[in-house]
Amino acid sequence: MKLLKQRILKDGTVKPGNILKVDNFLNHQIDIELFNEMGKEFKRLFADEPITKIITIEASGIGVACIAAQYFNVPVVYAKKAQSVNIDGDVYTCKVESFTHKRVYDVILSKKYLNADDHVLLIDDFLANGCALLGLVELVRMAGASLAGAGIVIEKGFQDGGKKVREKGVRVESLAILKSMTEDEVEFE
Amino acid sequence: MKLLKQRILKDGTVKPGNILKVDNFLNHQIDIELFNEMGKEFKRLFADEPITKIITIEASGIGVACIAAQYFNVPVVYAKKAQSVNIDGDVYTCKVESFTHKRVYDVILSKKYLNADDHVLLIDDFLANGCALLGLVELVRMAGASLAGAGIVIEKGFQDGGKKVREKGVRVESLAILKSMTEDEVEFE
Repeated sequence: MKLLKQRILKDGTVKPGNILKVDNFLNHQIDIELFNEMGKEFKRLFADEPITKIITIEASGIGVACIAAQYFNVPVVYAKKAQSVNIDGDVYTCKVESFTHKRVYDVILSKKYLNADDHVLLIDDFLANGCALLGLVELVRMAGASLAGAGIVIEKGFQDGGKKVREKGVRVESLAILKSMTEDEVEFE
Repeated sequence: MKLLKQRILKDGTVKPGNILKVDNFLNHQIDIELFNEMGKEFKRLFADEPITKIITIEASGIGVACIAAQYFNVPVVYAKKAQSVNIDGDVYTCKVESFTHKRVYDVILSKKYLNADDHVLLIDDFLANGCALLGLVELVRMAGASLAGAGIVIEKGFQDGGKKVREKGVRVESLAILKSMTEDEVEFE
């Protein structure tokens, strides 16, 4: 997606540890207009799928998922990290390792909001080592729901997450795939 | 807001510890159509204010803030809980006690995304003891920005958060204010 790639080149900065900072428009400050363009693009890519629900994971996936959901006319459900007192015991759960926060946490999703009748689109802001996305795929399979695929804003193509998820037969559509990045240059596939 | 109150009566359940579970439409599964109606209502309430930015706090405020932001044509910035490796050192920070999770955490917001030229609308899903909202008010004051007020989805009128925030001179507009709640009945102001 050209508009997104231009924005990454303009406002993204690369930090030590393979971190692409895009908090100017994606995961701290949110450019709602850009998010709407991304939502339209996800709809275009998955137009042939009878999506019933968009699933994401807190926190940075929520904004993209909500704006995109408007183009699909479906609810969003966001998986939560760690046990919350507001979640019933009746949940799907799996463990996920965070690349950003360098720790393992539990991801939970209430059984009430995902079931075998659902046809799911997963949405997230980043795909790097794939742990979060593989966790969401697992939750969908636990529910017996069918999976249309995953819509990702930025995929780090030089990490193996995309490969791992696609090897599981999941259709992954990333709006921008990074081939390489250094402090001086970001290159797209 | 009638539509929201009807939805709370239909789908909300009261749990021990003064917890109103509305995860069917507000803070786990998200009803995007309802969120759009709430966004329009926030715009109607703050139509006279030249808002430049909507500030919220992760995670459950993000969805409401993003959908509402479309009616104001402004970016959203969400304050983050606890230090993240993706946030620069140059941040506003304050401590907030969580009613839901029963612990104290640091709230941070990058100085790059809030400054003295901003006229801010705060948005959050719940107002109970007011800790999170008072934290956001403090961040806005640290930045020297002006504050249009706070748009809240559900205020627990029987807790003192609303009183504390209004006593600070902040305009608070809540779409539904609960007067009382028991396992059998929810009453609005």
